[in-house]
Amino acid sequence: MTARTAQDKAPRPGANQLHARLATRQQPIVVGVAGDSGSGKSTYTQGLERLLGAERVSQISLDGYHAEDRATRRLSGRTPLDPDANHLDQAVDHLQRLRAGEAVEIPVYDHATGRFQPPRRHSPTPVVVVEGLHTLYPEFRPLLDFSVYVDTAAAVKREWKHHRDTRERGYAPSDADAEISRRASQYERWIAGQQDVADVILRIHPSELGRLALGRLDADVQETCYHLEVIVEPRDDDLQSLFLPVDLSNMTRQHAMPFMLATVPSHFRGRAVNVLHVDGYMAPAALETLEQAICAFAGLDAPAGERTDEPLRPATVRFAQMLVAWPVLTRVSALAD
Amino acid sequence: MTARTAQDKAPRPGANQLHARLATRQQPIVVGVAGDSGSGKSTYTQGLERLLGAERVSQISLDGYHAEDRATRRLSGRTPLDPDANHLDQAVDHLQRLRAGEAVEIPVYDHATGRFQPPRRHSPTPVVVVEGLHTLYPEFRPLLDFSVYVDTAAAVKREWKHHRDTRERGYAPSDADAEISRRASQYERWIAGQQDVADVILRIHPSELGRLALGRLDADVQETCYHLEVIVEPRDDDLQSLFLPVDLSNMTRQHAMPFMLATVPSHFRGRAVNVLHVDGYMAPAALETLEQAICAFAGLDAPAGERTDEPLRPATVRFAQMLVAWPVLTRVSALAD
Repeated sequence: MTARTAQDKAPRPGANQLHARLATRQQPIVVGVAGDSGSGKSTYTQGLERLLGAERVSQISLDGYHAEDRATRRLSGRTPLDPDANHLDQAVDHLQRLRAGEAVEIPVYDHATGRFQPPRRHSPTPVVVVEGLHTLYPEFRPLLDFSVYVDTAAAVKREWKHHRDTRERGYAPSDADAEISRRASQYERWIAGQQDVADVILRIHPSELGRLALGRLDADVQETCYHLEVIVEPRDDDLQSLFLPVDLSNMTRQHAMPFMLATVPSHFRGRAVNVLHVDGYMAPAALETLEQAICAFAGLDAPAGERTDEPLRPATVRFAQMLVAWPVLTRVSALAD
Repeated sequence: MTARTAQDKAPRPGANQLHARLATRQQPIVVGVAGDSGSGKSTYTQGLERLLGAERVSQISLDGYHAEDRATRRLSGRTPLDPDANHLDQAVDHLQRLRAGEAVEIPVYDHATGRFQPPRRHSPTPVVVVEGLHTLYPEFRPLLDFSVYVDTAAAVKREWKHHRDTRERGYAPSDADAEISRRASQYERWIAGQQDVADVILRIHPSELGRLALGRLDADVQETCYHLEVIVEPRDDDLQSLFLPVDLSNMTRQHAMPFMLATVPSHFRGRAVNVLHVDGYMAPAALETLEQAICAFAGLDAPAGERTDEPLRPATVRFAQMLVAWPVLTRVSALAD
């Protein structure tokens, strides 16, 4: 916790409850996050780490269980999207042992080089986030306490993946484009179906605020401004309110930043779900209030993680992190009792 | 003020400020409201009366200045939408005298019978709301301290007007339908242009929540559920915040009511405006909080008007009343200094 946030907080009844309860648990709570490579899985679960603190949350990537490195894939023509191109049975075994409280040697795939690195010894933390292409496959589901699916629109994914592959992973741009095109049908075949079993689905599209403008939109909408949909199957097991203070006085402000929020019950892929839509820009103060409310609700102290990336993280991403963290934390809180 | 609301409120610094300042004014503050017959002008300004109290707000309808009663119009073929079918010069004279603090004999048109009634003596109150078809015409504008235009979509207007004309005003349904069709082009010619000079434009459409559903909307949207747009030219002269608490926990509730809120800067009919969109259902508790915040902001005590119609008024209408009352009250507050 930084000095600044420590000064901002008054002591609250129940603060640190969840921290304390998590510390006494023998077995970790496992949160599974599935989605395509480049869909932002890590970004959207970082809120959990910030709220709970790095010593209470650890992340495992199933990418280490790929059967082939990049060079081998070039020869075989397979992609890691194919579940048979992964050692999922080994991953299941490792997860079972982690859940039982054992430390495990986790294989590591280095996206920068496309090669495997030496395995990393992973000791279970109170909460373990497991990310991967197939995390919600049937063999994993009995091992998960909560599941999230991240579905990033092709246009956004293409932009992010292109950026990451070419800047961080050492692909040439033409290679990356070809890889992206080839993956589209494989994504539909092997990955997309997992959203039907996820507790929360997070969808990210390009901003659609232009559709709500009268005449034409009179604001610069940055490329980092997205339309988020948080899709939740209603459960009614946590009925406490979580208030986001929306400042209506923006309507009389010059250079107001565009913003949209909606809750729409929908019948989606055979399930009755609620869809929370968020688009545009949100005041940092409102996000701060929301984060404090989530902490209070979960019996947490002020965010425990370091917040050094604060100025860089777009408000929409930070909001999405909280909207994902909130149902996860309520489940974690119920399980930690 | 009812006993209930009196009990709910703690004394606030500045409470009654605006009431006291209005009481000492010699000349009334005049709010002009223009829009078609049946657009809901009275409904949307009733919030002012509820907030300020009936003894501080009075309403005048310019319909009393129609040159012809209904029987005469049937012969002449004219409609009151034609400014020349109204004694606007007389209305200007009366408004000038009211603004100077004089009592005036106001002509009265009875929509139920289509005939004129004996004039009504109108003594100026601290705030006078002037409603009519031509209220924002150039001859009135120097007499107005604030202006509102109510633009109700044809589909909604047709439904309301049909309902009112046939139930309250004694038209036969076929007469009403013919009248509505005949008025459409006259509305565009003589009325619609006034929105270009209004401080606030309120637009009412049928609900558009279905467009935000994934798959299909999974909620009963009543006919009384509208999509409202409050269009405001930003002024930056009242930069206090006005927070609406939106309960995000609805996303995990079964049978959640659909809801949408957005602020979108737009370039609309040649003006840079902000558009506040509201659609769907809002929790009464959130509206209560908002109403209290508006009162506190304007230095008002709890709503002074009677609230006997509370259970009947749809939440969207109550919200719209506040969204109209708020900029009016901030202007009134500035003028009453």
